[in-house]
Amino acid sequence: MPTLSVFVDVPMSYKLEGSLLKSYKQDDHPKKTFLAYRVCMSEDGQPWTSPVVTKLRKQIAQDPSLNYEYTPVMGTKSFIQASLELLFGKQSQAIVENRVGGVHTVGENGAFHLGARFLRTWHQTSRVVNIISFQKELYRLIFQDMGFTVNEYSLWDPKQMHIDSTIFINVTKQAPFGSVLVMGNIADCKLTQREWTKLMSIMKKKRIFPFFDIPSQGFSSGDLSDDSTILQFFVAQGFEFFCSQTLSKNFGIYDEGVGVLAVVALDNQHLLCTISQIMNFASVLWLNPPALGARLVTSVLCNPALKEEWKYSLKRVVENIMLIKEKVKEKLRLLGTPGSWDHITEQKGTHSYLGLNSQHVEYLVKKKHIYIPKNGRINFSSVNANNIDYIAQSISEAILFTVNPGVSSEVNDK
Amino acid sequence: MPTLSVFVDVPMSYKLEGSLLKSYKQDDHPKKTFLAYRVCMSEDGQPWTSPVVTKLRKQIAQDPSLNYEYTPVMGTKSFIQASLELLFGKQSQAIVENRVGGVHTVGENGAFHLGARFLRTWHQTSRVVNIISFQKELYRLIFQDMGFTVNEYSLWDPKQMHIDSTIFINVTKQAPFGSVLVMGNIADCKLTQREWTKLMSIMKKKRIFPFFDIPSQGFSSGDLSDDSTILQFFVAQGFEFFCSQTLSKNFGIYDEGVGVLAVVALDNQHLLCTISQIMNFASVLWLNPPALGARLVTSVLCNPALKEEWKYSLKRVVENIMLIKEKVKEKLRLLGTPGSWDHITEQKGTHSYLGLNSQHVEYLVKKKHIYIPKNGRINFSSVNANNIDYIAQSISEAILFTVNPGVSSEVNDK
Repeated sequence: MPTLSVFVDVPMSYKLEGSLLKSYKQDDHPKKTFLAYRVCMSEDGQPWTSPVVTKLRKQIAQDPSLNYEYTPVMGTKSFIQASLELLFGKQSQAIVENRVGGVHTVGENGAFHLGARFLRTWHQTSRVVNIISFQKELYRLIFQDMGFTVNEYSLWDPKQMHIDSTIFINVTKQAPFGSVLVMGNIADCKLTQREWTKLMSIMKKKRIFPFFDIPSQGFSSGDLSDDSTILQFFVAQGFEFFCSQTLSKNFGIYDEGVGVLAVVALDNQHLLCTISQIMNFASVLWLNPPALGARLVTSVLCNPALKEEWKYSLKRVVENIMLIKEKVKEKLRLLGTPGSWDHITEQKGTHSYLGLNSQHVEYLVKKKHIYIPKNGRINFSSVNANNIDYIAQSISEAILFTVNPGVSSEVNDK
Repeated sequence: MPTLSVFVDVPMSYKLEGSLLKSYKQDDHPKKTFLAYRVCMSEDGQPWTSPVVTKLRKQIAQDPSLNYEYTPVMGTKSFIQASLELLFGKQSQAIVENRVGGVHTVGENGAFHLGARFLRTWHQTSRVVNIISFQKELYRLIFQDMGFTVNEYSLWDPKQMHIDSTIFINVTKQAPFGSVLVMGNIADCKLTQREWTKLMSIMKKKRIFPFFDIPSQGFSSGDLSDDSTILQFFVAQGFEFFCSQTLSKNFGIYDEGVGVLAVVALDNQHLLCTISQIMNFASVLWLNPPALGARLVTSVLCNPALKEEWKYSLKRVVENIMLIKEKVKEKLRLLGTPGSWDHITEQKGTHSYLGLNSQHVEYLVKKKHIYIPKNGRINFSSVNANNIDYIAQSISEAILFTVNPGVSSEVNDK
């Protein structure tokens, strides 16, 4: 009698990602184009890396004074301090009052995992998490894995074709007391100061716990402090919160997963207790976070000259993306494509919605070999001088040659 | 009225480690010595790194062909393949039959975390885990965190002062049907072929799931295949199992946490399903494992000349440790220290039991400023020409000047 496998009941898992990329790779059409990369691409079609990082990689590898001992569970002090100062600003009330801290994590998923794990144990007022972000799926899986009930909302309004920041207020109004609110892409938010005040007032009354996501500080506006300025509002209003800070994207070290789970508390005592519990959770996850990414980031942030070089490289990326968006918009206009394309240039950052419906997306993928996600949110850094004409022409055709059912893909997705 | 902190009920956590190191650092005695480092130390008192790694760090940093895109969730194929071939041997039945696979993890804790997470969901015959290892605490915490009931056993018999490999058989006899058995330090096991056969027969009948831990292949015997040969017995007997493989220690890249969770299944289909589920769990943990450590390991393992250099460096470490152990034993004899000290040289690897009781340990720490763990298991690679005389003299004094209560520290610890 053959032995039964221990794994006999284990099914093949649904794949999280990669099917679009797989189809792209298998496609042998000469004009095939992939616009769904997660990373920022440089003009030569390779993942972008800040030039200062390339230089530092060599220096670090040759530094005889470095010690390759295990990294402390929390991360090195200099890395945490530099990252928090970048996020909050050196003069931040929370830093001055010694009530902000952080734990080095393996990327943004690591930060969300640690945060969710902490909240499951120590924040039991509600098991509901509302996520408002462009990037929702992985965060949903993390919180669901921890037993939370998760609702997802997009900032993008596919009918009006604009970023609808009032969703923060609408979701918060209906959120249960003590629930968690994941606020992604806050640098792209267009709430007025008055609307922010209103939002914070509702959140305070309902004791809603904010969990921010800063995935690529500097990539929205080109200015580092502008992209995280909203955190200051919350600090000033006496909020306690978590913030996932990712440093892989804005340095171009995607392969090293450099993240921080930042914690703001009311005072130093509560901060230390919270950090100590998070370190416990980190111990059973990976114990010692990987060093290289943090070393690169720290070397840049702690050296004023290198930091300037890095900031300059960020600005160049953002300027280039704005230029590409302008060009795409202009080309669509010149081709007589119906509709206003202002929404392209109104959005910030590498990834933006084209404002296409599911028929348009299907047309582009199947007929034109242009691979874009179902929601039509593409990576504009993948558009370059070599492919811009083909892309604009194809989008124009997609609009003209497909029947518009009046329902956009973002709605269909739900 | 002041606002109440969200974190008001969060207590300060018990610290996992570091208090001994902290005391050592605060000590200003000129002869202070720390013998509890987790990493292998070189003769100059710095963490050991294989020279081939130092060379490769520079090459990798200067390689213009490298792409810093996100690492795939599973890890790169070449890294996984090279690591599995190292662990099982290229000619292994499991490799030839395409029924062994692996997932790149952040260190050994990452591997145990992923494995425990999988077992919680897909292996529900028993919630009991028995851990037989020198290094138990962190693994216990990981399994407890997943809701398992954990029993811990040490391979070291403090009364007889030897490694008692029969504990594997005794524990297995009493283990519940379908429970998990974590088998650490198998390279130090001294079971005969007949005893292994007996152990495997009990395990098979009771459908006990083996979870091996290979934390530093090559550091026990100096020979890579000798240190993992027991895995072959289990493969040959048709076992399915997990194995945590750590590549940080034997390459000397402690700060990059390079691990693999290896999976052996009965056939390729069950393997693929299992790996797909483990990848799902990895996605909600860190999504993309860090690249540098895996890149260094792959570069060594895939280049025959570099691999020889690496193997030679491992042999040198092991020879040096054996020499140090011989010297310590000899010095203790010359000092007329009561007792046989053969147990020192009978143990393999960097870390070995001195065979001291809690009084001895306390004497060494408090009176002699020699910091060693409570169980008396020290890092022999920290003993060098500069400190060996002081250490031997101090041990000798500890034995002579403290009352032996007949109870060793390992027993007291429980």
